[in-house]
Amino acid sequence: MTTQMELARRGVISEEMRYIAEREDVSAESIRRKVAEGRIVIPKNVNREFPPIGIGEGLRVKVNANIGTSRDLCDVNLELRKAEAAIEAGADTIMDLSTGGDLDEIRRRILREVKVPLGTVPIYQAAIEAQSRHGAIVEMTEDDIFNVIERHAKDGVDFMTVHCGVTRESVERIIRQRRLLGIVSRGGTFLTAWIIHNQEENPLYANYDYLLEIAREYDVTLSLGDGLRPGCIHDATDKPQIQELLIIGELVKRAREAGVQAMVEGPGHIPLDQIEMNVKLEKSICDGAPFYVLGPLVTDVAPGYDHIVGAIGGALAAMAGADFLCYVTPSEHLALPSVEDVREGVIAARIAAHAADLVRRREIEAQWDYEISKARADLDWERQFKYAIDPLKARMIRESRSPRQQEVCTMCGEFCAIKLLKRYLIHAEH
Amino acid sequence: MTTQMELARRGVISEEMRYIAEREDVSAESIRRKVAEGRIVIPKNVNREFPPIGIGEGLRVKVNANIGTSRDLCDVNLELRKAEAAIEAGADTIMDLSTGGDLDEIRRRILREVKVPLGTVPIYQAAIEAQSRHGAIVEMTEDDIFNVIERHAKDGVDFMTVHCGVTRESVERIIRQRRLLGIVSRGGTFLTAWIIHNQEENPLYANYDYLLEIAREYDVTLSLGDGLRPGCIHDATDKPQIQELLIIGELVKRAREAGVQAMVEGPGHIPLDQIEMNVKLEKSICDGAPFYVLGPLVTDVAPGYDHIVGAIGGALAAMAGADFLCYVTPSEHLALPSVEDVREGVIAARIAAHAADLVRRREIEAQWDYEISKARADLDWERQFKYAIDPLKARMIRESRSPRQQEVCTMCGEFCAIKLLKRYLIHAEH
Repeated sequence: MTTQMELARRGVISEEMRYIAEREDVSAESIRRKVAEGRIVIPKNVNREFPPIGIGEGLRVKVNANIGTSRDLCDVNLELRKAEAAIEAGADTIMDLSTGGDLDEIRRRILREVKVPLGTVPIYQAAIEAQSRHGAIVEMTEDDIFNVIERHAKDGVDFMTVHCGVTRESVERIIRQRRLLGIVSRGGTFLTAWIIHNQEENPLYANYDYLLEIAREYDVTLSLGDGLRPGCIHDATDKPQIQELLIIGELVKRAREAGVQAMVEGPGHIPLDQIEMNVKLEKSICDGAPFYVLGPLVTDVAPGYDHIVGAIGGALAAMAGADFLCYVTPSEHLALPSVEDVREGVIAARIAAHAADLVRRREIEAQWDYEISKARADLDWERQFKYAIDPLKARMIRESRSPRQQEVCTMCGEFCAIKLLKRYLIHAEH
Repeated sequence: MTTQMELARRGVISEEMRYIAEREDVSAESIRRKVAEGRIVIPKNVNREFPPIGIGEGLRVKVNANIGTSRDLCDVNLELRKAEAAIEAGADTIMDLSTGGDLDEIRRRILREVKVPLGTVPIYQAAIEAQSRHGAIVEMTEDDIFNVIERHAKDGVDFMTVHCGVTRESVERIIRQRRLLGIVSRGGTFLTAWIIHNQEENPLYANYDYLLEIAREYDVTLSLGDGLRPGCIHDATDKPQIQELLIIGELVKRAREAGVQAMVEGPGHIPLDQIEMNVKLEKSICDGAPFYVLGPLVTDVAPGYDHIVGAIGGALAAMAGADFLCYVTPSEHLALPSVEDVREGVIAARIAAHAADLVRRREIEAQWDYEISKARADLDWERQFKYAIDPLKARMIRESRSPRQQEVCTMCGEFCAIKLLKRYLIHAEH
C-alpha cells in the first residue's frame, strides 16, 4: 500500500490525480507536484472507491457537510437522507459526527451508501465508549483512542479530525487566557479535560508516530483539528489558538515526512478584518497545507442565520486562500440540523466557495456566471433555471408570483429594463 | 427653511444631529462637522417628523428595504405589511419603488404610516405618467420629470434616487462597451432610452441646478443613482460605470456648494476582489460622500439566494467604507418579494452591516456579540434569544427539536463542550 503523497513523490501520476486534473481543468503534473509537497490532499482511503476530489492550492474550493446522530435525535435513516440532500445540493464531502446509537454500524452504513470522501472524528466514539466502559470520558485510555482510530481507518474513513495540537502546553495557555467562551470544540474539550484530569500529555500528540503509521497504511488524510478554536468574536485569534497552530505546523511537517497527507482545520469565529490574516498565518506556519475552515462566523449575534454569517466569512477566507469550507446550517448553536437546514447550509457554503473561485480561478469559473447572465440578457427563463445553483428554488419563487407577460418578472413587469433597452440600444448601435 | 448641511456649516448642532450623536455614541460636534463636509447625510424632509438617522463616516452601517407595487402585484396594504416587517426586522429606511396603481396615493399613504426615512425614485412615476399621457416613456418631457420630483419633495420624501450621471457622454460609452447585460437600472434605462431617442441631454443633468433648488427647499437628500451600474460579474467595473461615477463626483461637489445633502449609489454586481477598490474609488472621486450599495452581489449564479450573495458583498463593502446597504431579497431576479422575503432580506443585510460595524466601531458594537456569547457560556437560553438578531426564529429552531436536558441542545446533548469543560477548567484554575 502506498499513499497518494508517496506515489506523487516517486513521480507517479495516479489515476486519482489524473481524474482530478481533468475535472478541475489543471495539469495532472501540477496536481502531482502539489500532492508531493502536501499543498493538495486527496482524501481517499485505500479501501474505498468513488470519484476522487482534491483539496488545496489551485483547485476549486470544496464544501463539507456534517451529518450524524446525537443521543436526542438518533435515526440513521434520517442522517442518510441529510447526506443525500447535502450531496444533491453540491457538497463535496460528508463528515459523520454521530454520537448516538451503534456508532460502528452507523458509520459502516454511511460508508456503504455515500459516494464522496467521508470524514469522522474518532475521539467522539472513544470518549463515548470510555464513558460507558469506565464511567467517565476522562478515564479513556490510549488504547481506547487508538482502537477506534484503527477501526475507522479499516472501515474506509477517508479523512479524520485528530486534535493532536491540544497539548499540555496549549492547555496551559487556555487556563491562563480566561476566555469568555472556553473551548467549543467537542474533541478539544474531551482532550483538555483528559489532560487536566490525568496530568498527562495528549495521547494523539504523545503517540503521533503511531497515528501516522495507521494513517499511512490506509492513506487516511489527517485533518489536524483546532481543538482550541475560539468560540466567539471576543476570543478570536488569541494566544491558545495560535499556540495550537504552531504545534500543528510542526505536526504537518512530521506527517509529510511520513508520507501522510494532512490538512489543517481553522476557526470558527473571526471578525471580518482578521480573516485574511488568519488564513495567511496558517499557510505560512503550516507551509501551504490545505486549510479547512468552519465558517468562519463573522458575528455571534445571528443564531438561526449562521449559514449566512458563515457564507460571509467563508467567501473571505477562501478568497484569502482557504481551500475547504465546512458548512454551517441555520440551526448552528441551536439544534441538530434538519434535512432542509442541511440543504440551506450546503448552498450557502457553495455560494461562498464559488464567489471565491471567481477570484482564484476566474477564467474557468466565470463561465458559469457568464452563462446565467447571458440567459438573463436573452430573457430566457428556462436557461436561467438551468444555470441556477438551485434550479428548483429559483423556479418555485418565480412561478409562485407569475407575471402577465411571460418574458419579464413581477418585479418590473412591462417596465423591464432589459426588455426596454433592447429596443433603443439596438437602434443606437446601427 | 435651511438644510442640515447649511445649519452644520453655520456651526449649529441641530436637534437631529444631537439625537443621532446620542444614539450612535459619538460626539455631536463630529456629526456636525461631517454633515457640514458632506461625509454624513441626515435624510429627513423638512415636512416630516420621525427619529432621525445619520448615514456616513463613523456611524453604524444602515440598511434600506425596498417595497412597492408593480402592475402585476398591486396591493398597497401588502406593501405596507412589507414595510412593517422590514422595520420590525431592523431596516433603517424604506424605499417606495411602486410602479402599479395610484402612485401619489400609495406614496402618501406610506409616508403617513412609516416612521423612518422614506426614499423614492421619481423617474419611475414620470416615465409611467408619460407612457399613459404621451404613449411612450421616451416622450416624457422635462416638466413631466420635475413636476413629479416637486410633488415627491412636497409630500415629504426624505431621499430621492436621481440618475443625473446618465449623460450623453456616459451613454456613448455604454454603446461602445457592448456589455453582456446592457443596463439593469430601470431609471438608467428610461433615461438612456430617452437620450438616444431624443438626442438631447438628460434633463436631470441639464437642469441639475433646478433639482438642487427643490432639494434644498425641502432638505431632500439626493441619492445620486448609478443608472449604468453593471448587471453581472462579466460587466463589473467597466468604463461606463466609472464614467458615470466621475460625473457623479462633480455633481456631489455642486450639491455641496448649494447646501444640498447628497450620497452616491454603487453597484450591483462586483466580484469579491473588486469590492474594496470600488468603495475606495467612490470615496476618493466623491470626496467622502456616503456610499449606498445595492448588495453588491459577488456572483450571478444564485437566484433564490441573492440575500446571501448580497450579504457577502455588503459585509465586504461596508468594511471597506460603504455606509448604507440596500437589501437584496431571495426573490431578486425572479419576482417581487413576499413579506417573508422582505424579512429575510433585511436580516441578511443587517448581519452584513453588523459584521462590518464590528470592524468600523469595534468598541461600541462588540458589546452585542459579548452579551450573546456570555449567555452561551452560561448556557442561558432565554438570554441567548434576547440578544439574537431574530429571537423568534432562534427560539423556533431550538424548540422544534427539544433536547432531553434543558440546559444543552440536540446537537451535542450530554456531550456539550461548554458544560463539560466547566467542570475541569474550574478545577485547573483554582
